[in-house]
Amino acid sequence: MGMKIALAQINTKVGDITGNVSKIKAWTQKAAQAKADLVLFPELCIPGYPSWDLLEQASFVEANQKALNELSRWVQEPAILVGFAGKNSSSLGKPLFNSAALLWKGRIAVQRSKTLLPTYDVFDEARYFEPAKSNKSFHFKGIKMGLSICEDAWNDKGFWGRRLYPLDPVRNLIREKIHLLLNISASPFDHGKGRTRYRLLRAHARKAKVPLAYCNLVGGNDELVFDGNSLVLDKKGNPLAQGRAFREDLLLVDLPGSTPLPMSWEEFSDIQQVYEALVLGIGDYTQKCGFQDALVGLSGGIDSAVTCALAVGALGKEHVMGISMPSPYSSPGSMTDAESLARNLGVRLLKIPIAEIYQVYQTALGPFFKGYPEDVAEQNIQARIRGNLLMALSNKYKALLLSTGNKSELSMGYCTLYGDMSGGLAVLGDVPKVTVYELARFINRHQELIPESSIQKPPSAELKPNQKDQDDLPPYEVLDKVLRAYIEEGWDVKQTTSRLRLSEELVSGLIRRVDLNEYKRRQAPPVLKITPKAFGVGRRMPIARGFWPR
Amino acid sequence: MGMKIALAQINTKVGDITGNVSKIKAWTQKAAQAKADLVLFPELCIPGYPSWDLLEQASFVEANQKALNELSRWVQEPAILVGFAGKNSSSLGKPLFNSAALLWKGRIAVQRSKTLLPTYDVFDEARYFEPAKSNKSFHFKGIKMGLSICEDAWNDKGFWGRRLYPLDPVRNLIREKIHLLLNISASPFDHGKGRTRYRLLRAHARKAKVPLAYCNLVGGNDELVFDGNSLVLDKKGNPLAQGRAFREDLLLVDLPGSTPLPMSWEEFSDIQQVYEALVLGIGDYTQKCGFQDALVGLSGGIDSAVTCALAVGALGKEHVMGISMPSPYSSPGSMTDAESLARNLGVRLLKIPIAEIYQVYQTALGPFFKGYPEDVAEQNIQARIRGNLLMALSNKYKALLLSTGNKSELSMGYCTLYGDMSGGLAVLGDVPKVTVYELARFINRHQELIPESSIQKPPSAELKPNQKDQDDLPPYEVLDKVLRAYIEEGWDVKQTTSRLRLSEELVSGLIRRVDLNEYKRRQAPPVLKITPKAFGVGRRMPIARGFWPR
Repeated sequence: MGMKIALAQINTKVGDITGNVSKIKAWTQKAAQAKADLVLFPELCIPGYPSWDLLEQASFVEANQKALNELSRWVQEPAILVGFAGKNSSSLGKPLFNSAALLWKGRIAVQRSKTLLPTYDVFDEARYFEPAKSNKSFHFKGIKMGLSICEDAWNDKGFWGRRLYPLDPVRNLIREKIHLLLNISASPFDHGKGRTRYRLLRAHARKAKVPLAYCNLVGGNDELVFDGNSLVLDKKGNPLAQGRAFREDLLLVDLPGSTPLPMSWEEFSDIQQVYEALVLGIGDYTQKCGFQDALVGLSGGIDSAVTCALAVGALGKEHVMGISMPSPYSSPGSMTDAESLARNLGVRLLKIPIAEIYQVYQTALGPFFKGYPEDVAEQNIQARIRGNLLMALSNKYKALLLSTGNKSELSMGYCTLYGDMSGGLAVLGDVPKVTVYELARFINRHQELIPESSIQKPPSAELKPNQKDQDDLPPYEVLDKVLRAYIEEGWDVKQTTSRLRLSEELVSGLIRRVDLNEYKRRQAPPVLKITPKAFGVGRRMPIARGFWPR
Repeated sequence: MGMKIALAQINTKVGDITGNVSKIKAWTQKAAQAKADLVLFPELCIPGYPSWDLLEQASFVEANQKALNELSRWVQEPAILVGFAGKNSSSLGKPLFNSAALLWKGRIAVQRSKTLLPTYDVFDEARYFEPAKSNKSFHFKGIKMGLSICEDAWNDKGFWGRRLYPLDPVRNLIREKIHLLLNISASPFDHGKGRTRYRLLRAHARKAKVPLAYCNLVGGNDELVFDGNSLVLDKKGNPLAQGRAFREDLLLVDLPGSTPLPMSWEEFSDIQQVYEALVLGIGDYTQKCGFQDALVGLSGGIDSAVTCALAVGALGKEHVMGISMPSPYSSPGSMTDAESLARNLGVRLLKIPIAEIYQVYQTALGPFFKGYPEDVAEQNIQARIRGNLLMALSNKYKALLLSTGNKSELSMGYCTLYGDMSGGLAVLGDVPKVTVYELARFINRHQELIPESSIQKPPSAELKPNQKDQDDLPPYEVLDKVLRAYIEEGWDVKQTTSRLRLSEELVSGLIRRVDLNEYKRRQAPPVLKITPKAFGVGRRMPIARGFWPR
């Protein structure tokens, strides 16, 4: 064999069929200039991924099919491989397939569909698609190719303790003695995913003893961030080319290929990957929703500082505005920290004290609160005054409000619904507090952007005198370990207690608190996912419930 | 054959394994007193339905299995048929089955699992369960029984244009020449569902020429309300017994049965069904979340009046409090209407004017709003002041805040996030405005509880001078037809335009507005589902998107 293959790692937009097709054409032309024979595009690149219940709208499916047909007539050389929602012509089963088509010389030369449909975590593919019953290889320019679509490559017997599906489409393709393995994907980022993917793909290439080309989606779509990191491996599983992380990229590789590269995980450290994922997630959500500008409430604390710095990374300093809303419980340092941060980042800062507003609420509610002890109600009023002010400015300035709460707070309900939880996007909602500190250090790696005092001071909601997070919560190092055990690893109280050497009382109390605060998270903004288990669409919990892990 | 069968239509609570098992025991004892041979309980009655991602927690599955084992040792006579999450002992496929067990004389006599797993709308069963490959009949006391579990009975070739599954488990059971068909279900209410269910079950009984016993769940669990309406049919498909709607009930029937009953859809009219569903949904959500009391903001308008009356129906007048928060834009009639309503219903009414609070916000924001024209921002501030006051009272009194917006408003985004959308439960979030009027008439059927003037006056948000809903929206009779076409029927713009004889401009404008306001609904409280397609877990739409139906 001998062929120049291109991987077009593009950033599609959910539902934007016209825009996605324009992009596919533009990138095909780039690949044509480089004399590519075949260009791979990501899974479902025509409708965008994940299109959710748009896939249940007949006019959407129709538009996607029409776009495919038109594109097929446009394509000459190189051939392109694109993903689309294909109709199931049978009256049995789900009405769609998760399909891919090889377009060449003005026609649809080959059509295949996904065999394994992920239906767990953030994936709901069985909701929409009928699985393909089989997946045959095909020939293109004399080369026998085996195409798998994302999950199709994730059912290797050697890899998993529990396999979710009886079929292994890649093994079946290998049995057909293909010359080249292709996989087009929309595989969302979480920290650590890249390594797993590489190990998995390498195993396939080695088993098949043929090269493998893996084209992944890039970009943010609501809560999901796709990281790109496309990959071409030689028949020994060594990388011949690697797509950029969190950027669009065009890879061009002559196959079978000669000189393997070292696998460069080092483009980004683990913490920079999180940083880049969040920056891409903010930027894409903001722009794909039609905003240019964002607002962040700046408390002087580390969460809002990190959120603001990420927003500047995503949108540019001229498109980010900080709002400081001090109360009598704000420490003097908080105000100056917010000012330093805004100055360091070069963002405009508005200052709106809330004491007077809070006073009027107290007067209005006084007669009805009489005889009741002071409790969290008074604290929430302040947080909700800030929420109201931020949303008023968001409405007036047509700027997206970013909420600043981290995953540890959201887990514990250490946050106010309609208060600090207000916003269009929960930037740090999947970032544990300990990782927020790491992000702050990363952001400050060249110079102090986030004031050192914001990082150093004990975290506080500053909603009553001398309040500290640690009055109510264990140290974040401990809390985050328990949360990771419960939410990401799925350990129960007993396992967590013994493995982390903590008291059962502490662990079960924390887990109960996670569960009790489900009602707040149900009304949270979309949370950018960066861990294997984020709050939001990938974690579906009942609110009214009678099970409390012990 | 000859056998006394009991159907225990119970109200389980998600996750409350201990409580559910206690209830199963208590109802088994009732059936024992009536000399029943066999008692049916609803689908997944031990863990509760839907348990969502609790099913991914090993300790939860373990507790449910342990409860089943203990229950099996307790059972002697009568035998009972219960639903539980059964472990899949194979290392292939999902780790659970949606199972049922016949418990008799101290042991698990028979075990079966669900073959067809609904994965659409509000159902996510393929997320958790492996489908059973087949479903054999079994003998009990000399009678050959065929058991299906909910969806198993919903794939009849004669019934659907598109069948979702290749298997038809009921047809297979009929081929085995069973004497009795059993179905245990957790089938949620929507208006019209009862008739479909009856037609479907009748067709099965007639085809099989044997009696059929259908035991359905009752009760509210988050957004879903299960309506009971269990049914025993004779071999001609005539009803022998019918469970109550929206109440727990025990049906006792001697089979094969002799005297069929008339099918009594008349227990509740269509509008009363909606009323009963909402009352049950409010009551169960409130109590299952651990609240006794509820708050409702009373504007003097029809939505809040209906919500308040429903809350009184669910919780009793002493457990409901109304809050009136007039502004300078409130009409004088609004205040007196709220007062009349509270008096008529016998609920306490608190009055907190918001003019002064709004004034302070205006002062605080004045410098930042300067030069910007007045727009929706000013209106939202007022709505959010009310949200803050309501949540403050909710926090202080430990009372659940009920939000009052209807489906038509929620569709159009004619509501304020963190303002009138605040609350733990969106009572009317699936009730179109036109149906809200019908509910008001129904509530007033015996005496005027909702002031006639609340019903008669043109709807208004009263957030600016002389504002009327119809300034921004077409008449609700027209709007609701378009919304039903788009959201429930899935018609596109062209179909809706021609079938409803409306202009394309109007229809596409409204549909676009539905889509543009997805971001608000993502942060809405759980919405009680009463139509075939409600906002919330059954309708999953992207926020950032580029597809606008034309």
